[in-house]
Amino acid sequence: MVASPKALLDELKRLFGPRVLLARPEKAVYRYDAILVGEEPLAVVLPETREEVQALVRLSRNFGVPLVPRGAGSGLSGGSVPLEEAIAVAFTRMTRLEVDPRTQTAWAEPGVTTARISEAARPFGLFYPPDPASYRTSTLGGNLGENAGGPLCFKYGVTGDYLLELEWVDAFGEVHRLDRKAYDLPGLLVGSEGTLGLITGARVRLLPFPKHRATLMALFPQVEALAEAVSRAIALGAVPARLEFLDASCVDAVEDYLHMGLPRGHALLLAETDGDDPELVQEELALLEETALALGGKVRRARDEGEAEALWRARRAVSPALGRIRPKRVNEDIAVPRSALPQVVREIEALGKAFGLVVVQFGHIGDGNLHPNILFDPRRESEEKVWELAHEIVRVALRHGGVLSGEHGIGFMKRKFMGEAVDPETLGALEAVKEALDPWGLLNPGKVLP
Amino acid sequence: MVASPKALLDELKRLFGPRVLLARPEKAVYRYDAILVGEEPLAVVLPETREEVQALVRLSRNFGVPLVPRGAGSGLSGGSVPLEEAIAVAFTRMTRLEVDPRTQTAWAEPGVTTARISEAARPFGLFYPPDPASYRTSTLGGNLGENAGGPLCFKYGVTGDYLLELEWVDAFGEVHRLDRKAYDLPGLLVGSEGTLGLITGARVRLLPFPKHRATLMALFPQVEALAEAVSRAIALGAVPARLEFLDASCVDAVEDYLHMGLPRGHALLLAETDGDDPELVQEELALLEETALALGGKVRRARDEGEAEALWRARRAVSPALGRIRPKRVNEDIAVPRSALPQVVREIEALGKAFGLVVVQFGHIGDGNLHPNILFDPRRESEEKVWELAHEIVRVALRHGGVLSGEHGIGFMKRKFMGEAVDPETLGALEAVKEALDPWGLLNPGKVLP
Ligand SMILES: Cc1cc2nc3c(=O)[nH]c(=O)nc-3n(C[C@H](O)[C@H](O)[C@H](O)COP(=O)(O)OP(=O)(O)OC[C@H]3O[C@@H](n4cnc5c(N)ncnc54)[C@H](O)[C@@H]3O)c2cc1C
Ligand SMILES: Cc1cc2nc3c(=O)[nH]c(=O)nc-3n(C[C@H](O)[C@H](O)[C@H](O)COP(=O)(O)OP(=O)(O)OC[C@H]3O[C@@H](n4cnc5c(N)ncnc54)[C@H](O)[C@@H]3O)c2cc1C
Repeated sequence: MVASPKALLDELKRLFGPRVLLARPEKAVYRYDAILVGEEPLAVVLPETREEVQALVRLSRNFGVPLVPRGAGSGLSGGSVPLEEAIAVAFTRMTRLEVDPRTQTAWAEPGVTTARISEAARPFGLFYPPDPASYRTSTLGGNLGENAGGPLCFKYGVTGDYLLELEWVDAFGEVHRLDRKAYDLPGLLVGSEGTLGLITGARVRLLPFPKHRATLMALFPQVEALAEAVSRAIALGAVPARLEFLDASCVDAVEDYLHMGLPRGHALLLAETDGDDPELVQEELALLEETALALGGKVRRARDEGEAEALWRARRAVSPALGRIRPKRVNEDIAVPRSALPQVVREIEALGKAFGLVVVQFGHIGDGNLHPNILFDPRRESEEKVWELAHEIVRVALRHGGVLSGEHGIGFMKRKFMGEAVDPETLGALEAVKEALDPWGLLNPGKVLP
Repeated sequence: MVASPKALLDELKRLFGPRVLLARPEKAVYRYDAILVGEEPLAVVLPETREEVQALVRLSRNFGVPLVPRGAGSGLSGGSVPLEEAIAVAFTRMTRLEVDPRTQTAWAEPGVTTARISEAARPFGLFYPPDPASYRTSTLGGNLGENAGGPLCFKYGVTGDYLLELEWVDAFGEVHRLDRKAYDLPGLLVGSEGTLGLITGARVRLLPFPKHRATLMALFPQVEALAEAVSRAIALGAVPARLEFLDASCVDAVEDYLHMGLPRGHALLLAETDGDDPELVQEELALLEETALALGGKVRRARDEGEAEALWRARRAVSPALGRIRPKRVNEDIAVPRSALPQVVREIEALGKAFGLVVVQFGHIGDGNLHPNILFDPRRESEEKVWELAHEIVRVALRHGGVLSGEHGIGFMKRKFMGEAVDPETLGALEAVKEALDPWGLLNPGKVLP
């Protein structure tokens, strides 16, 4: 309990005026991210400058109330969810953005949405590659907090790969602005989910927009053949921009929803190649087509952008299609070596059956990043059992040399698994770093570390 | 002074037998890197396994003697040079290397030379891009220690961009093996010059070898025109693989040495494009050619690999050519925004004249990474003055929004400048991290931090 909540709230009101939210219905929204629920924050503050963020850190320390940074709250591991009496710091008003075509970079404040960076870069023939499916709402601060990836990440890499320079306020209230030289603190903050500092700005790298793209869809009776086709094509030198996988139950759900004429009981691969040379782009796709055919896949190759769009609808329809099966879902996020993928998909399928719950699987297969989704109806199915299954799914990944999280982060959802995924000595090192940078535990307590 | 040096040396001999060097001439070699001199180490140890590295850390703590990690000792900032009574840990016997073509990665121990990684990858059509000019002797451990770059880094990035997974022994004697997820400690160790842990292995990313390359050389009467040509071509979408710059005094030195017919008093640009599509590779080079011609450059375009080799000789001849002018040199390493480069080159030229010392400049112009070299004869010229000039050169970089080190690191050579380059609050954060991970100050004391 805060010693003097009234004094704290008065001070917040004095400093932030209407940009501090105190009404219960307004605050209640900030209990949630896209999947998890926590405590109602004591207050929600919407800072507009780094100086205001510094002031918040000073208040936090003086009153002993922790801060929970938050972007769009689209996270899937509870990173932005308050777990105790805390101030939610929503960065959605810090939205300045400046594209510099000469250096092919952009300087953005943390509240800028992912999509806006690419939109602002487009007139200069540039784009910002990290593309989480949530890119229209998710913010750069949240993307950095989770080191978000997306379909393009096999070829182009994840958020951290595009960070050139970071500005943040630390737990002592100091502002830092650093590029990524010796003692790469910016890199350390990437993926740290607001536990090591509050990000107030970042310079990110932009890339020239590739001039050409080509798409194919391939359907396989077995996941094994699909995974093998992908591995062979990559070994032959293909570097597809996007490589998305849907398992058979996911494909069936999409077919029930869209009626695209997809065969039942087949696993689906969507692949896109891109580049500046149209022939090379087609050749790279041909490599994928040949290996898919050789392994018994049925291939549809898009003849133009319109057809490509039609094929990609299958991927974009996954969320609504699953929503028709059950009203709620837990979106797991694991990554395993690509060679282990068929076996992992099978084991997770079997687990779903054993638990009597609907499980569908899809993901970025190039990186072995899999999203097993447990679909359920909280009125008829036990949420406890759902989470038990989610945990078993994580154990499958760890058993096959995989990792806890492909791209959604640890948050508080997977915090207790850190002890299974990371040995105690390494955990000790992570704790030492946290202790050094946030000695009073004011920054997003209860996240990442067990 | 070590409390009981005899007991320490006995223990080292017991553990490492002939792999501990104690004879003075043998130890003396380990006082130097490629440019600086420090203290003779108490002993030099050549570990072969991670367990031996752990044993060394335990000894270090028990006897209170610090460890100085070392690869090939080709560093240019004193990173591997002992500054006090210490044990030099030379990783040159840890040379296991395994290429995995399926995942396009290699697992390498720290003593593997940079060149060997690409050699081992070649049969699979793969290569390892980071290419410091020292790549035949430098080791992966040293490359990670300094986050080394090379001519290819404009297009392909630096050592840290290729690190997927790191194994290291910390100051507590614990082994960690981590990929680059939340709390990216591997990333933090990159560029930390052995001050945060001893690297015992790394998984690095390999890339498919580009099938085609093309080269041109362009000579400009003015550095301004050269820098502008580079900027324009990049703005038009050229992403050259290599972009090397030599200033007029450097070109004159090369011409005196090679007699290639280079015009006197001209700045030189060497550019290489690469890719899988021969036409696109030529087109990208054509962009550079056109902008160079438009800005008054004289262009030589190589018609084949043989001619390209001949042009690149100019770059490779720099070291021996400079050696003929003066017996010694200090190789500075700064990075500035590309737009500031002409002005920075002029100011450094003027500084050289004011100091009465020979200064030549070259570097990776794509990244604004410049290597001003001060040539001198220690019998006739004051070494103190040379270092004074070196410091002034760093100040020029900082004044123009540049950084202390482009790729050679801070070591102890630039340690005192950290206070000018980084604000006190940020230095405090760096110190807190160091303190957390190496509380007894046993790992490479006196490096990086002021
Ligand atoms: C439909 C849907 C699809 C998705 N698809 C993907 C996908 O393809 N790939 C993927 O990686 N993720 C995906 N996500 C997850 C989520 O969108 C990403 O993790 C995203 O990066 C979160 O951004 P946000 O702005 O919503 O951050 P939030 O959820 O608000 O916060 C995320 C974390 O970052 C911290 N944080 C936020 N701002 C700051 C700041 N300024 N300083 C310090 N810390 C901060 C928070 O404390 C929290 O720990 C998806 C989510 C949904 C709902
Ligand atoms: C002719 C010449 C050309 C060069 N060209 C370039 C260039 O183009 N680009 C460039 O970036 N550099 C260049 N360098 C500098 C140097 O070669 C690089 O910094 C290289 O990475 C050093 O590797 P090394 O194995 O010699 O490391 P060392 O010099 O032995 O050590 C470098 C640092 O890494 C630490 N270290 C070494 N091994 C480990 C380990 N296992 N664990 C923890 N820390 C460790 C050391 O303590 C030290 O701080 C050049 C040097 C020379 C002499």
